[in-house]
Amino acid sequence: MPYFDYNATTPLTAAAREAWLGAQTDAWQNASSPHRAGARVGLRLQAAREKIGLVMDCRADRVVFTGGATEAAHGIMQHLSEQLPADAKIAVNSTEHPCVLGAVGSYFESEQVVRLPVETSGRIEMSAVEAALGEGVKAVVVMAANNETGVLQPWEEIAELCRHAGATFVCDASQWLGKLPAGGLAAADWVFGAAHKFGGPKGVGFLLRPAGDNGFSLRRGGGQESGQRGGTEDFPGIAAMVAALLEAEQSKVLHESDRLRTREAFEREIQRRLPDTRVVGAAAERLWNTIALVMPHGENHRWVARLDKCQLQVSTGSACASGKDAPSHVLAAMRVTGEEARRVIRISAGWETTPQEWQELADALVVVAPSTKPASAVISI
Amino acid sequence: MPYFDYNATTPLTAAAREAWLGAQTDAWQNASSPHRAGARVGLRLQAAREKIGLVMDCRADRVVFTGGATEAAHGIMQHLSEQLPADAKIAVNSTEHPCVLGAVGSYFESEQVVRLPVETSGRIEMSAVEAALGEGVKAVVVMAANNETGVLQPWEEIAELCRHAGATFVCDASQWLGKLPAGGLAAADWVFGAAHKFGGPKGVGFLLRPAGDNGFSLRRGGGQESGQRGGTEDFPGIAAMVAALLEAEQSKVLHESDRLRTREAFEREIQRRLPDTRVVGAAAERLWNTIALVMPHGENHRWVARLDKCQLQVSTGSACASGKDAPSHVLAAMRVTGEEARRVIRISAGWETTPQEWQELADALVVVAPSTKPASAVISI
Repeated sequence: MPYFDYNATTPLTAAAREAWLGAQTDAWQNASSPHRAGARVGLRLQAAREKIGLVMDCRADRVVFTGGATEAAHGIMQHLSEQLPADAKIAVNSTEHPCVLGAVGSYFESEQVVRLPVETSGRIEMSAVEAALGEGVKAVVVMAANNETGVLQPWEEIAELCRHAGATFVCDASQWLGKLPAGGLAAADWVFGAAHKFGGPKGVGFLLRPAGDNGFSLRRGGGQESGQRGGTEDFPGIAAMVAALLEAEQSKVLHESDRLRTREAFEREIQRRLPDTRVVGAAAERLWNTIALVMPHGENHRWVARLDKCQLQVSTGSACASGKDAPSHVLAAMRVTGEEARRVIRISAGWETTPQEWQELADALVVVAPSTKPASAVISI
Repeated sequence: MPYFDYNATTPLTAAAREAWLGAQTDAWQNASSPHRAGARVGLRLQAAREKIGLVMDCRADRVVFTGGATEAAHGIMQHLSEQLPADAKIAVNSTEHPCVLGAVGSYFESEQVVRLPVETSGRIEMSAVEAALGEGVKAVVVMAANNETGVLQPWEEIAELCRHAGATFVCDASQWLGKLPAGGLAAADWVFGAAHKFGGPKGVGFLLRPAGDNGFSLRRGGGQESGQRGGTEDFPGIAAMVAALLEAEQSKVLHESDRLRTREAFEREIQRRLPDTRVVGAAAERLWNTIALVMPHGENHRWVARLDKCQLQVSTGSACASGKDAPSHVLAAMRVTGEEARRVIRISAGWETTPQEWQELADALVVVAPSTKPASAVISI
């Protein structure tokens, strides 16, 4: 059953499953317990932290294990709101994930937030970043890769600009990690991701905090994570996450260009066979796995349902928003009209996706499309 | 290797492991995805919520899935701090878990917090609860069972008093759930627990919110959990938690009185064989699995280490605080002196613990104890 909804969540990899089961057998004890079995879990937890440090090319003490990206976003925004002056301004990319926008909105007043516009390609307007920094924003929030469109943001440049301006750079790497090399991301002050987006289990993730920021505390409690996150560490989940990330970094990401070619071939084919389809963000560099496709006609929910009947799983956009009727803020920021946005399906592949499955998807899209384009612009398919 | 540190964390039960693996195979998709596979996960998530509602004897819509007890405590305290008047007072049991005290301290000013004393038995002073309610505290925070001593609190009475006074009652049931019947706990307005304390995986838990409280949001994000907790739901973790809790409720808790007799027999035996040992909270009703034992002499860390060499795992107190030198606030609240507190070991059994293992522990305690009591009160053993 070809699954093209990897950006919503991924199946657990074999390596992650094995690591989890192994840890549930021999490292399930509480890392804070005073006996040797507990201490051994503590050591393995530290080894896991060092592995994340290696992958991210940063010191292990920047790594804080979390319950996922939403938790990280909230913890970081709460911390920044407490650390920054009460009237500090914060510049936020318009196409961030709802969990990041939700976190910003939870801890900053709307008059503190400068919305950074994107080009129609989905790429952030760098002049707006520069202008915001020139006006003294204290923090800049820009994701590495967009979940709906796959559009990549120039995070290296932004990290450099922020460093020069003395502003804090927060980078949501949830959709980047495991798909593209993680090296360099640690140039951002704060980086975070979630294991279930790269083959690890749900309910676990990690963040990087600035090297000098020792006052960070996601929540107080039993002093776990050097006081940075209360709550018994989920070592089996962490072990599974590390296994998935290491495998992705050490072998999978090397195949990125092959996968990119497969995606591009699919895009050419579908535009040839369904001429009025359009790829959102076609002018930008995008993740090798993601296509936001404007269908020629018919509402996206109908396309999703028809493909679903053909055993092909795609989405209408970000999973968490897909049940809602509001048009995507990501597409709106890219000047996709509301009418067009209702025709967008999100296709997101995984490392396991084969060229044959892409072919199956192309064929199915042609099959489920109405044979002739109806006269009316919006019609049930 | 007899493990007597169940209050720190429990091994995963076979039922929980099976549920987790099953869900990772056939229900790993995102519950918010618009295809049928996602919808099926959404339905199973709702079924899991209803099962928790059955166990807790409350409406399923009171159940919010969380990442654990620390997260729940913080979410609840943040919510109460926003809902209650700015100068509202909140009464908090002195022997709460550090994560609850940390959460209270994160969201309430110290002058808002009325500390509720306990008797030397560890049982809360009900007159203090009544007095606090009489003085108009808006919320009362008392755990169901203590993690260090196993002392049970009269939560049914407190729930009744709070209901009459119109105050909110928050009850940490982390150590109660899975050990004693959960029925009735839903009389508290807010209840929470963590799966890894009752045989489920780490990183997952649940809370009950008041039936009418629709404004609760642990964190904003993608609108998951009816907007009450952003972040992709960890359905495999939730399925494993439900499996562990159902098994505990449907069969294990029926054996409580047997287990209590085994614990009592151990206490009698150890006090006979090591006459100057003392059970903390002996005058109170306690969990069938927990003993905080004041050893006749020698520091607790030495006892733990010596037992550890005999392949017996006990703790010095709550796992998260065990690496720290500060004396336990729980023991201090029970008027255990600092000198005595340094001699306390925590023994916490599980459903898997056999009478033979209890016997092994008693024998080992006698073996590792110095043969004669030294003249000095504090001496290395």
